[in-house]
Amino acid sequence: MNKYNALLNTLREGIGASHVLTEGNLSAYEQDWRKREHGKALAVVRPASTAEVALVVKACVAAGVSIVPQGGNTGMVVGSTPDASGTQVVLSLQRMNQVRKLDAANLTITVDAGCVLQNLQETCEQAGFLFPLSLASEGSCTIGGNLGTNAGGTQVVRYGNTRELCLGLEVVTAQGEVWEGLTGLRKDNTGYDLRHLFIGSEGTLGVITAATMRLYPLPASQLTAFAAVPSLEAAVQLLGLAHKYLSAGLTGFEVMGQFALSLVTKHFPQMRVPFAGEAAYCVVLENSDHESEDHARAQFERLLEAAMADGCVLDAVVAENLAQARALWHIRESIPLAQAQEGLNIKHDISIAVSRIPDFVRETDAALGAAFAGVRLVNYGHLGDGNLHYNVQAPVDSDAEAFLKNQEKHVNAVVYAAVQRYGGSISAEHGIGSLKLGKLEQHKSPVALQLMRSIKTAIDPQNTMNPGRVLRR
Amino acid sequence: MNKYNALLNTLREGIGASHVLTEGNLSAYEQDWRKREHGKALAVVRPASTAEVALVVKACVAAGVSIVPQGGNTGMVVGSTPDASGTQVVLSLQRMNQVRKLDAANLTITVDAGCVLQNLQETCEQAGFLFPLSLASEGSCTIGGNLGTNAGGTQVVRYGNTRELCLGLEVVTAQGEVWEGLTGLRKDNTGYDLRHLFIGSEGTLGVITAATMRLYPLPASQLTAFAAVPSLEAAVQLLGLAHKYLSAGLTGFEVMGQFALSLVTKHFPQMRVPFAGEAAYCVVLENSDHESEDHARAQFERLLEAAMADGCVLDAVVAENLAQARALWHIRESIPLAQAQEGLNIKHDISIAVSRIPDFVRETDAALGAAFAGVRLVNYGHLGDGNLHYNVQAPVDSDAEAFLKNQEKHVNAVVYAAVQRYGGSISAEHGIGSLKLGKLEQHKSPVALQLMRSIKTAIDPQNTMNPGRVLRR
Repeated sequence: MNKYNALLNTLREGIGASHVLTEGNLSAYEQDWRKREHGKALAVVRPASTAEVALVVKACVAAGVSIVPQGGNTGMVVGSTPDASGTQVVLSLQRMNQVRKLDAANLTITVDAGCVLQNLQETCEQAGFLFPLSLASEGSCTIGGNLGTNAGGTQVVRYGNTRELCLGLEVVTAQGEVWEGLTGLRKDNTGYDLRHLFIGSEGTLGVITAATMRLYPLPASQLTAFAAVPSLEAAVQLLGLAHKYLSAGLTGFEVMGQFALSLVTKHFPQMRVPFAGEAAYCVVLENSDHESEDHARAQFERLLEAAMADGCVLDAVVAENLAQARALWHIRESIPLAQAQEGLNIKHDISIAVSRIPDFVRETDAALGAAFAGVRLVNYGHLGDGNLHYNVQAPVDSDAEAFLKNQEKHVNAVVYAAVQRYGGSISAEHGIGSLKLGKLEQHKSPVALQLMRSIKTAIDPQNTMNPGRVLRR
Repeated sequence: MNKYNALLNTLREGIGASHVLTEGNLSAYEQDWRKREHGKALAVVRPASTAEVALVVKACVAAGVSIVPQGGNTGMVVGSTPDASGTQVVLSLQRMNQVRKLDAANLTITVDAGCVLQNLQETCEQAGFLFPLSLASEGSCTIGGNLGTNAGGTQVVRYGNTRELCLGLEVVTAQGEVWEGLTGLRKDNTGYDLRHLFIGSEGTLGVITAATMRLYPLPASQLTAFAAVPSLEAAVQLLGLAHKYLSAGLTGFEVMGQFALSLVTKHFPQMRVPFAGEAAYCVVLENSDHESEDHARAQFERLLEAAMADGCVLDAVVAENLAQARALWHIRESIPLAQAQEGLNIKHDISIAVSRIPDFVRETDAALGAAFAGVRLVNYGHLGDGNLHYNVQAPVDSDAEAFLKNQEKHVNAVVYAAVQRYGGSISAEHGIGSLKLGKLEQHKSPVALQLMRSIKTAIDPQNTMNPGRVLRR
C-alpha cells in the first residue's frame, strides 16, 4: 500500500489533488458504456496538459502501476475502464479539450485529445469547414478516443475512418516521453508511420494527447434519398452506380433489412418508414454537393433513373427538405433502439468485401436458421464500407435471456467462422478492447498476432499501457 | 565462402538456378537509378511466387545474409541496391507481376508486388476504373516499390499517397513467415495496423509480395488549366478556392516559379510556356469530372472567374483538347530536365504546411541569397500537398561542380534548418534510403527515432532486411 500512497502523492503534487480522484462515485470512469463491466480504479487522474500526462505516465512507470487511458468512455468493447483490482490508474483526457489551431489554408485543425467530437464538428462548421467524422456518440466521445479506436461512422464511404482523417499526432509514450508529431503534412516519408501505429491501438502503446485533423470545405447542399431494393445483390449494384453517378458526392450508403425496418415500425409507430414491408432491403443514400441543391437533386435523379432502369431500385424518395432528410436518417438510427425494445440480442460488427456480402448473408442466414430454429436476423449497416451490424434476435416468444445465455457462444461461432471463410473482419469499427480479445486470438492470423506482440513488447516493455486490451502478453 | 556457397545452392534448388544471378552485368540491379552508388551483390534472386520469396528469406536468415528487396529500382534515395561488400542478396520482385483479381463491386484490385505501375493503371482503365497513382517513373517502377516507399506523385491532392490507396498487404516477414493481409476491407479494427507499418518502411521490416489497392470510377472528363498568379500567397489562395469550387474534382495542383519556367523556355524553346515571364508563379490545375466535359469546363470557368475577381489569378487558359492538356502538363514535367540542361544542382524534396509555404520560401530564398551570392532557385512542386521541389542552381557562369562540391552541405544545412523551423519534412515523397540517413538522424525527433529503432529491432532482430536504410542499428 505504501507504493500506492507514494504514487498518489506524486500525482497530487504534479497535477493538483483535486484532479486525482479516489473517493466518491467514480462509476462514470469505472463502468463501460454498455454496463458490461464495473471496475475499480486506484485513482482517476485528470491532467490538464501534455506535460502533466507525461508526469503521470512517468510516475506510474516508476511505481509499476498500469494506466487505462480514457476519453468519453463510450466504447463498445470494454476498452477504457479499469479492471477490478483497484491497482490501475484511469487517465482521463477530459480536461484537455481545447482547440489549439485551425489552419484554414492548410485545411487542418489541431486539437487536444479530450475535445468532444461534436464540439470539434461545430468549431469547424462555424469557420466554414466540414470535419466529416460522425457517429452516434458524438455528443460525448472525444477525438482522442476516436483515434485510439479508429472510429468509423456514417461518412466513411467518402472520407474514410478516423485514421484517414488524421495528419499528425502528439503522443506520450509508454515511458512518459513526448513524441511531437503534429505536422499537418500531407506528405512525409521520413521513416516508419508512427501515427498509424498509435491510431487504433486502443491506448495499449501510448497516450494520444493531441491530433492534427483534415478539414474539407462545407458542401453547398446535402440531400438524402431512401430507396427500396429487391435484394442485397441489388443494393450492391446500386452502390456501384452511386459511385459512378455521384463520385465523391456519395457520402453515405446505409442498408437496412426488412426485419430491421419492421422492428422500427413496430416499436416506433409514429415513424413513417417508406416502402414498409414492400422490399427485401431499403437503402439510405446521402449526396453532398459543392455546387447547389438543384445540382444535387439533378444528380440524384440521374442516379435513381439509371438504377430503376437497371432494376436494382424498385422505388425511391428524395427528401424535400432538411426535416424530411432527418426523418429518413432517423429510421436508420432507430434500428438499435428498436432492437433493444424487442429484447436482448446478439450483436456483430463485421466487415466483408462488398462484392461478397450477398453470398455471406444468404449462407449465414441459412446456417443460423438451421441451427437455431426461429432465430430472427436484424441486418443493417454501412454497406458502402462493407460493414454490417449483423445481429441476432432470439426467436419470437422465447426467453431471450436464456437464449443468449445458452446460445450466444454458438451463434458467434457460426457467424465468425463464416466471416473468416469470407476473408472478413470480426470487428469492423468497434475494436477489440477486452470484450473481443479471445475472439481475436481465434480468428487473427498467428503471424499477425506475433507481429503485434513484438511491437507491443518493444514499445511498452513494462506493459504499462492498457494491459490486457487488444492482446494478452 | 563456404557459407555463401551453401546458401547459393539452397537458393538455386529452391527457385531455379537461372533465377539466381551471380555472373555477368548486373548493374541494372546493383546501381541506383540516379547512378550515385554502384554496389556488388552476392546474388540477384528472382523468385516467382510468395512461397519462393519466403524460401529465400528463410535461407538468408539461416545463413546470416542480409536482403535488399528491389522493385523497379527507380528510387531517388539509394534504397534498393546492395552495398559494395558482395555479401548481400538482392531480392527482385520483377517476376511476380500478375494481376491476381479485379473485384469491380468492391472497387479493388489485388496484384503481385512486381506489377509495373503503368500496367496496373492500364489494366484498371480497360476494366472501366481509375487507379490514380501516377508518377514520372510509372513505366518501370513497381507497385511493391511504390508501397515500400509510399510514393506520391501528381494526384495526391485528391487520392492521397500510395499508402492511402492500399487496403491490404501480403508480406513475407523478416523471419520468412507469410502474413496474409489481403483483405480488401475498408473497415477493420482488429489490432495494430501492420499494413501502414510496412508501407513506407523501404524494405527494412519485410518484403511486400502483393497488395489490394483501391479503385475509383473513371472520370467522364479531365481538364487542365494553366494560370498565372502574382505570388506564392496568391497560389495558396487559389488552392483554397479550387478546393471550394471543384471539391473532389481537384485532382492536380502544381506550382512553378518563374525561374523554373524560364529554364524550360531556354532549353526547350519549342515549348510554348503561357504567360512566360509575366508572373511570379504559374499553376497547373486539373479538374476530373464524373459528369461531362461541359460540366468540367463550366466548373473551371466559375473557379477562374472567382479567382480573378479576388486578384489571385492574373490570367489563365483552359486546355481545349487532350493535346493542349498534355502540352501544359509537359511544361511542368520538363522542369527537372531543363534544370539538368542548365547544369548540376542541389535538390530538395520537402513539405511544409500549405499555409506556411510563402513565408518559408521568402525567408529561405533570402537566406540562401545572402549566404551564396548569385545562387538561383528552381522552385516548383505539388503545392496542393505542401510538397516543394526546392532546388538550388549554381550561380550563372560559375563552376557548378565546384559549387556543389564546396557548398552542397552548407546549402542543405540552411534549407533543412528552415524546414525544421517551419515544422516540415526533409523528405516529402522520396523517402530516406541511405542517401538521407544522416539527415534524418539530425532532423527527426529523438523520441520518434527511438520508437522506430525499437520497432525495427522487434520485427527484424537479425537486421536481415535492407540494413542501413532508413535507420542505423
